[in-house]
Amino acid sequence: MNKRYLDDGTALHTDLYQINMSEAYWSDNMHNRKAVFEVYFRRLPFKNGYAVFAGLERVIEYLKNLRFTEEDIEYLRDELGYPDEFLNYLKELRFTGTIRSMKEGELVFGNEPILRVEAPLVEAQLIETAILNIINYQTLIATKASRIKQVIGDQMAIEFGSRRAQEMDAALWGARAAYIGGFDATSNVRAGKMFGIPVSGTHAHAMVQVYRDEYTAFRKYASCHKDCVFLVDTYDTLKSGVPAAIKVAQELGDKINFKAIRLDSGDLAYLSKEARKMLDKAGFKDTKIIASNDLDEQTIMHLKSQGAKIDIWGVGTKLITAYDQPALGAVYKLVAIEDDNGDMADTIKISANPEKVSTPGLKKVYRIINTHNDKSEGDYIAMEYEQPQEEDRLKMFHPTHTFISKFVTDFEARELHQDIFSNGELVYECPDLQDIQDYVKENLTILWDEYKRILNPEEYPVDLSQTCWDNKMKKIDEVKEKIAQLSQK
Amino acid sequence: MNKRYLDDGTALHTDLYQINMSEAYWSDNMHNRKAVFEVYFRRLPFKNGYAVFAGLERVIEYLKNLRFTEEDIEYLRDELGYPDEFLNYLKELRFTGTIRSMKEGELVFGNEPILRVEAPLVEAQLIETAILNIINYQTLIATKASRIKQVIGDQMAIEFGSRRAQEMDAALWGARAAYIGGFDATSNVRAGKMFGIPVSGTHAHAMVQVYRDEYTAFRKYASCHKDCVFLVDTYDTLKSGVPAAIKVAQELGDKINFKAIRLDSGDLAYLSKEARKMLDKAGFKDTKIIASNDLDEQTIMHLKSQGAKIDIWGVGTKLITAYDQPALGAVYKLVAIEDDNGDMADTIKISANPEKVSTPGLKKVYRIINTHNDKSEGDYIAMEYEQPQEEDRLKMFHPTHTFISKFVTDFEARELHQDIFSNGELVYECPDLQDIQDYVKENLTILWDEYKRILNPEEYPVDLSQTCWDNKMKKIDEVKEKIAQLSQK
Repeated sequence: MNKRYLDDGTALHTDLYQINMSEAYWSDNMHNRKAVFEVYFRRLPFKNGYAVFAGLERVIEYLKNLRFTEEDIEYLRDELGYPDEFLNYLKELRFTGTIRSMKEGELVFGNEPILRVEAPLVEAQLIETAILNIINYQTLIATKASRIKQVIGDQMAIEFGSRRAQEMDAALWGARAAYIGGFDATSNVRAGKMFGIPVSGTHAHAMVQVYRDEYTAFRKYASCHKDCVFLVDTYDTLKSGVPAAIKVAQELGDKINFKAIRLDSGDLAYLSKEARKMLDKAGFKDTKIIASNDLDEQTIMHLKSQGAKIDIWGVGTKLITAYDQPALGAVYKLVAIEDDNGDMADTIKISANPEKVSTPGLKKVYRIINTHNDKSEGDYIAMEYEQPQEEDRLKMFHPTHTFISKFVTDFEARELHQDIFSNGELVYECPDLQDIQDYVKENLTILWDEYKRILNPEEYPVDLSQTCWDNKMKKIDEVKEKIAQLSQK
Repeated sequence: MNKRYLDDGTALHTDLYQINMSEAYWSDNMHNRKAVFEVYFRRLPFKNGYAVFAGLERVIEYLKNLRFTEEDIEYLRDELGYPDEFLNYLKELRFTGTIRSMKEGELVFGNEPILRVEAPLVEAQLIETAILNIINYQTLIATKASRIKQVIGDQMAIEFGSRRAQEMDAALWGARAAYIGGFDATSNVRAGKMFGIPVSGTHAHAMVQVYRDEYTAFRKYASCHKDCVFLVDTYDTLKSGVPAAIKVAQELGDKINFKAIRLDSGDLAYLSKEARKMLDKAGFKDTKIIASNDLDEQTIMHLKSQGAKIDIWGVGTKLITAYDQPALGAVYKLVAIEDDNGDMADTIKISANPEKVSTPGLKKVYRIINTHNDKSEGDYIAMEYEQPQEEDRLKMFHPTHTFISKFVTDFEARELHQDIFSNGELVYECPDLQDIQDYVKENLTILWDEYKRILNPEEYPVDLSQTCWDNKMKKIDEVKEKIAQLSQK
């Protein structure tokens, strides 16, 4: 084991092969060739009908701070043996590229570029790992939260998952992503401080244990908190917890706001209905019932269909880890590279699996909004130089089943990418988190309900322009031709 | 949304209810009562036969740095409205408690205390969230890695998952946990720098795209790296990738070490066998084959059973997210609290689910090693004041099915907890990471193979001493009696 180095930067938060490739590019004097990479995922997570993009703010922070520290350089030299000249180059490296990206809170679908990096080859290559690490997780959680919120509807949803999150960053940035996806609050105080998310929480079972019984614990809690939510399942919910909560509320009257009781175990449908009756009978009709315990969109839907009297939903593990699909597979693919003459040449990655063939060239993504009903007809991917917004009639066809097509007239082609960095300079101001959450809600109104079902939603169209399609086919043919020649040798 | 605060500490990396309870304790002058909490999980993850404890080093760092910053206090006052007197108390708060814990790399089983906190009530309460957040994730990944390594055996295993990890901390600490669990290397350079883990990686598909064809890309890579691993699946593995790798290796001869080729897509069993033949035929019998692409213990076992010619395994998503069970459910339960007379009183948490009933009191955990064969007979949980190591014969019985029991003689009762903090002072020196990995290997040798099967392992015995059991039953009866009295009212 080598000496321990200080964790004083995130430039090394990358895969080793990025540095090895960088050295090869640098030694071949290719490091400043302009390269274009796109971030996209192939399949929507959770079989959902859409995803909610999140992670841009953190990506921006990472890129603003991209520099190799003295400790980084020392490690690369002393432990990994990179040559000094290459390290001198790395020492001076900053992000000088251009980034266009969707805004956080944008709805995003499979196979469309979320974010595009145009930068000197080495810079563009080094940042891949961190960008994917950030976007994959935050987009996953924002999407899961939005899915859960679809089922919760107008009721309140609280993110409770810190203790089960995959380490600290996930708890923190997951809370933020959950808020973007539509959650109302988090239990994580650091997330509240950092991001301005409303924080929520009252007391744990331990407090009841400390005071031995619920009555005493609730009285003590109420003595210094006017707003009271009492956790009623430490010993026996209906025999001891709820009666103690009611007793304390009756004794204290106006001195407290008996906001809610919280159920955290047992049969939540049955217990909530019984507790509701007890609260109503005692005159606490406005006191809410909060429920938690391994909830997700499925269990919440079932509880609702059984008439559970739950007003506020605490969601932990299943949200913060995206339990049923804990990884999003966004990739980062080279779509163009500067050639020996200084021109940009489109590039492709072929695969035996047709879905995995990348789409070459610099592209833009448009959301095609029908101006009669303000609903989206689908997304349209065109080459950078095309101007679909100026056309009267757009032909949209399915990118794998190309025989399926439709013509759209009376549309607005809304470009989804914003300028974020321009030649290394940050030209974008991150919106307030509340605005991002509002933006998601606004975006959801332009989607037909068929895309928002949590089970078997319709597939949202993401189509290539004819030019984009032809360009892709041409590249595939070129590669196939080359491979055929190789095998004849 | 409130103003944005600096992320200048982790004291607020806690659930809001911890702070609300703390205020109640503080205002009731209970904050310095000595409290004892235990960390344990109920069920082993992945239906594995054991778990590998990890996370202690990070917990220690967190506790050493536990203090509320000026920004924290300002946030709590200005945004959440806590009173100044309470905040003045928080401002001075440091961790002054005592912690006993298993060492990292210890094998751990369900329902046994991994770590025990004895501290003034408020301190012990505030640290719950972060401790669970850290231990749950790192233990999960160390266990998953160990499970995968059981199948990989003596072959090399590399952790590749950063881009799919749940945010940056997970990539970093997950790489460390994977190393503890038996992995040989990681692709994450920051993890290499921070923890001294060997790092591994060569080049990506992008490099082949940049140079248009594999032959040129491999030549360029080889021109500045003596050790060469060529990625052969950018266009067509057998027709173009492998032949190009062989050609470059033949041309360069001794100038490079043709270490390996890497397969990252397609049918890994078929491709590896064909590639092996091609390499062997060309005289590269020592050149290894590395495979990756959504691997886990199941796919690796199947590939091996099909005779895949894979020598080195790159494991990403499925390991770093613990894909098939992305959360461990470790909890933090109050087992004793100082009473009004200054004595420690045991506490219990009852549940309708018998497995969720906590075990009261200060306890110690022993691994009972049979001195004839050096194999473990099971773990034995006794009250703090018991001395099982001094007994000639130990009765071990199943903690829920108590009619199952056995007597053990000729044993060594090895205590599993170490002193970590003593009244706030760190008294433990964290071992080198390599030593932790070695310790896991050593620990695995004392487990019978039946507990190490990845499918349907035997259940390892975790037993309570008679005294511990009787104490638990007494507490359950007391609570039941109290609830019965309440319902009669």
